[in-house]
Amino acid sequence: MNLLLLHPEQHLEGPFWRLDARQCEHVRQVLKLSEGDQCRAGVLDGEIGFARLDSIKNNEITVFFKAVSPPPPPLDLNLLLALPRPKMLKRLLVDAASLGIKRIVLINSWKVDKSYWRTPNLKAGLLREKLLLGLEQAMDTRLPELRLAPRFRPFVEDELDTWAGPGERLLAHPGDHADLPHQQEGPLTLAIGPEGGWTPFEVELLAGHGFHCHRFGTRILRVETALPALVGSLMRLP
Amino acid sequence: MNLLLLHPEQHLEGPFWRLDARQCEHVRQVLKLSEGDQCRAGVLDGEIGFARLDSIKNNEITVFFKAVSPPPPPLDLNLLLALPRPKMLKRLLVDAASLGIKRIVLINSWKVDKSYWRTPNLKAGLLREKLLLGLEQAMDTRLPELRLAPRFRPFVEDELDTWAGPGERLLAHPGDHADLPHQQEGPLTLAIGPEGGWTPFEVELLAGHGFHCHRFGTRILRVETALPALVGSLMRLP
Repeated sequence: MNLLLLHPEQHLEGPFWRLDARQCEHVRQVLKLSEGDQCRAGVLDGEIGFARLDSIKNNEITVFFKAVSPPPPPLDLNLLLALPRPKMLKRLLVDAASLGIKRIVLINSWKVDKSYWRTPNLKAGLLREKLLLGLEQAMDTRLPELRLAPRFRPFVEDELDTWAGPGERLLAHPGDHADLPHQQEGPLTLAIGPEGGWTPFEVELLAGHGFHCHRFGTRILRVETALPALVGSLMRLP
Repeated sequence: MNLLLLHPEQHLEGPFWRLDARQCEHVRQVLKLSEGDQCRAGVLDGEIGFARLDSIKNNEITVFFKAVSPPPPPLDLNLLLALPRPKMLKRLLVDAASLGIKRIVLINSWKVDKSYWRTPNLKAGLLREKLLLGLEQAMDTRLPELRLAPRFRPFVEDELDTWAGPGERLLAHPGDHADLPHQQEGPLTLAIGPEGGWTPFEVELLAGHGFHCHRFGTRILRVETALPALVGSLMRLP
């Protein structure tokens, strides 16, 4: 937690905010702050700055928040991600949020195990929690917009164009394709397939909606390794 | 496991090899192969090709291995990594090996918790196991060379120059530095600090040994996110 991320329901009045239980523990156990000390803080979807410990009473900590600057610029990249295994999903959401990705669709694919769609991890609250962890890590405040697309074809045919908007659309796919472009300006939409890759039908449908296949080396990487490597390769991190 | 990685002690005679318990389970449970079926395989530090199931008897599986091609080219990057938290370390080694990194030093730093050097994860066998998982993931056979440097200054002053050899030396460090270069050819040496970063003394000592500080965006990334992002940004993946 590099940033105390203050949520609207924590607002008291004026510049005063009440920390939640996890933040209290962090402030006490990790940062070991006393009254008057300060640390980095930000307001969800708002500015970042400093929180000065105003009072510690019983189990309640109130802080005085002072905004200093806008959050870091977002990464101008939309991520279309085949729903990964539940264990990976958590990490990928933290990573995606910390890298500055602001628009994510988790989509079905032939090779996505059906059971992944029934996992408790897909509850909105848990997804949001992982995204918040990524923001706290990267000292960002803007919550990514996350959608689930449990049916591949309807999403690609009916919604993808609007969702992805303008800009290049890329698919990292093994085979005899051009190398992945580098240092793009954005906007970009990046599609990352499931373990085992997209099926030929899926690649064709994505290609029909403006996605170009690119080669990204010869190695098979785990999705959680591939995502930051692809982002680092494609774009200049803001 | 995208590759059955055959170790010297598994060699029987001629083209025949015996699978170990983990490989047997993978072949039976995941790949569900029968006699005569084949899958990707490689010989540790040797070529990659195919293994054809020769016989399944009791709990023993023997395969006929046919070499087809050399393993994928290595990434011409040396990694100087401040010893991460034990849980992260495992993942980082798998990632580093799957990305094709072949030379790794785990080094001490002021902000590395002393207890990390006493963790059972640092046993040579466990480190090697994680590197092997990375090779199996990326269908590579060349085991990275891994060294531990529990004392920062002696390693940097006495051994770093020889270890790193020629080529650019880079340090991703927050501050007013040039942006990280892109698409380098290598050889490169990349230094990644601990959570909280290198101390000014450490940065100075590394700078005295040819390391240049570079900016890599404004976000604070976890080491396991930063490593693939930095590698993807710095080099063209082979």
